Amino acid sequence: MTSLQDAVQRIGPLLEEAMAAARARQDQLTKPQGSLGRLESLSVQVAGITGNPRPVIHHKAVIVVAGDHGVAAEGVSAYPQEVTAQMVYNFLRGGAAINVLARHVDARVVVVDAGVAADLEPHPALKIRKIGYGAGNIARGPAMTREQAVQALETGIALVEEELSQGLDIVAPGDMGIANTTPAAAIAAAVTGLPPAEVTGRGTGVDDAGLARKIAVVEQALRVNEPDPKDGVDLLAKVGGFEIGVIAGIILGAAAHRIPAVLDGFICTAGALIAAAIAPAVTAYCIAGHNSLERGHSAMLRHLGLKPLLDLDMRLGEGTGAVLAMGLVEAACKILNEMATFAEAGVSERTG
Amino acid sequence: MTSLQDAVQRIGPLLEEAMAAARARQDQLTKPQGSLGRLESLSVQVAGITGNPRPVIHHKAVIVVAGDHGVAAEGVSAYPQEVTAQMVYNFLRGGAAINVLARHVDARVVVVDAGVAADLEPHPALKIRKIGYGAGNIARGPAMTREQAVQALETGIALVEEELSQGLDIVAPGDMGIANTTPAAAIAAAVTGLPPAEVTGRGTGVDDAGLARKIAVVEQALRVNEPDPKDGVDLLAKVGGFEIGVIAGIILGAAAHRIPAVLDGFICTAGALIAAAIAPAVTAYCIAGHNSLERGHSAMLRHLGLKPLLDLDMRLGEGTGAVLAMGLVEAACKILNEMATFAEAGVSERTG
Repeated sequence: MTSLQDAVQRIGPLLEEAMAAARARQDQLTKPQGSLGRLESLSVQVAGITGNPRPVIHHKAVIVVAGDHGVAAEGVSAYPQEVTAQMVYNFLRGGAAINVLARHVDARVVVVDAGVAADLEPHPALKIRKIGYGAGNIARGPAMTREQAVQALETGIALVEEELSQGLDIVAPGDMGIANTTPAAAIAAAVTGLPPAEVTGRGTGVDDAGLARKIAVVEQALRVNEPDPKDGVDLLAKVGGFEIGVIAGIILGAAAHRIPAVLDGFICTAGALIAAAIAPAVTAYCIAGHNSLERGHSAMLRHLGLKPLLDLDMRLGEGTGAVLAMGLVEAACKILNEMATFAEAGVSERTG
Repeated sequence: MTSLQDAVQRIGPLLEEAMAAARARQDQLTKPQGSLGRLESLSVQVAGITGNPRPVIHHKAVIVVAGDHGVAAEGVSAYPQEVTAQMVYNFLRGGAAINVLARHVDARVVVVDAGVAADLEPHPALKIRKIGYGAGNIARGPAMTREQAVQALETGIALVEEELSQGLDIVAPGDMGIANTTPAAAIAAAVTGLPPAEVTGRGTGVDDAGLARKIAVVEQALRVNEPDPKDGVDLLAKVGGFEIGVIAGIILGAAAHRIPAVLDGFICTAGALIAAAIAPAVTAYCIAGHNSLERGHSAMLRHLGLKPLLDLDMRLGEGTGAVLAMGLVEAACKILNEMATFAEAGVSERTG
């Protein structure tokens, strides 16, 4: 198993030579230069991540990580905590949105219990990596110990490494955890320095009173725990959650193995903020899949310097926005690989 | 063959009953209501278009229509006119961007010669529907006669009907035609009332001098031809083009047969402006695939009241943005069809 420290040390800059070769090829393909916009730049980024000037995205995985949150007791969610476990079973049966969208883009779904507050029934497709039975209530104290935070991160790194043997060209972490927009908002506020009211949204759909309560809980969590925004492990331990830590670890593990990580929405990007606090170079390996409707998500992406691919008013999580974006990344790499050049096609180049 | 008049008469409003049923089902699926945003509204729109409360998008086609433009003689393009024919051969060999992206979303590519200024070599996959050898130079006179305009529109309607036998759940018109952003800009200016400078862009990439020349040509085309923006056939005849007319006909034909039409960028949306001038009800059958980087495209979409699905800085045409969006429409319908309901999955509903 790769330690957190070893993974962080492996994360270097993108490989310029492969990027230059990809860029040169894009400019020879039968289209006006630059006319495929972000599909072109995406293909160049994936070349730089993988070191392959003609990268292929074939094996795709979304790793959906579930965990519960003690802060649910503060009445910050429109759904009861039992829904976390119920949705894990829904993932295992293939009936959730992430299953449908993953099938659509031909990505495999890996389901992980990182900290559901119940013992789940064993299932061949369920990876039980429990760090605890629900994170602590961040309104009253830390989410977890520093040791548990490192364990969560290393669990994410290990999950990526377990997938390598089956082939892994791109990965997206997904989330499930009732109340997890509350710790994610606390992470966003701590890292961006914005007031909690500006990065706290309605999550699964709380009403105005619920939203006001949630903002107060985020403020309280920051006051009680005083997380250090420069220390990603501290941030995770104080105001994070088990699935958020595993997600951050998946992002670090992907970068350590030169695999692009597609970010989903609010929770996943909170994980990316933690990953970037630990290893700033990780952001070059991240592709922002979409802009979530959840308040605060765009501030998170701005902080990371990432521009989302999709903006479809989605706010579900599970990795749903990320897998849709995976299809675009795959398309971008196919453009680079499969299009004819001007010379091959006998098409005249520009005159003006 | 369906006449233009018959097709227009067939285009009625969306079917409310199917939309209501689709909406009701979306609200029972295992996700917070509305949390899949535009995927949900897209599925409801397709239900209303097709009349099927659980529509399936399986058979997909992009019909790439090629035509030349006499206005190329005014030096409005960065590429020589011969590229239109060369790119048709590239489409037939499968080496163009549209081929790659259509394969990615499993859409078939239909290639049509609506008015290339050369006799193309026969090919089993090429449909020769020549209305003329290049449209007239709109800077000096009309693009075509009124009879040719009707012929172009009816050719588009017939192309949709030819595809029905192979199965057609969704269609996207694509374009190829050196200099065709010039007539498209003239159509945009005429319909929106905006000054030509605000809806004329760099097309395949003309420099500043080329852009100034192009704006002057658009102004001249409007002055010389005085198209009636309320009369779609007049607009097409005066400042359109053969492929633009066929594209408008495809959009009308799709709506007449209750099939969603995905719009691509600047040229395709110029076709949609013509279609909407002829039959305003057609816009309900249109899905704006993407926002093109080409100046003026967003003004066209605003005029039609359509919001694009993708915004990836693309400006290639051929149907490239539309086929990527087709994948999203298919995903939206799969969500509606394949997700489990709360009752089926045994997931608790919201408490708050």
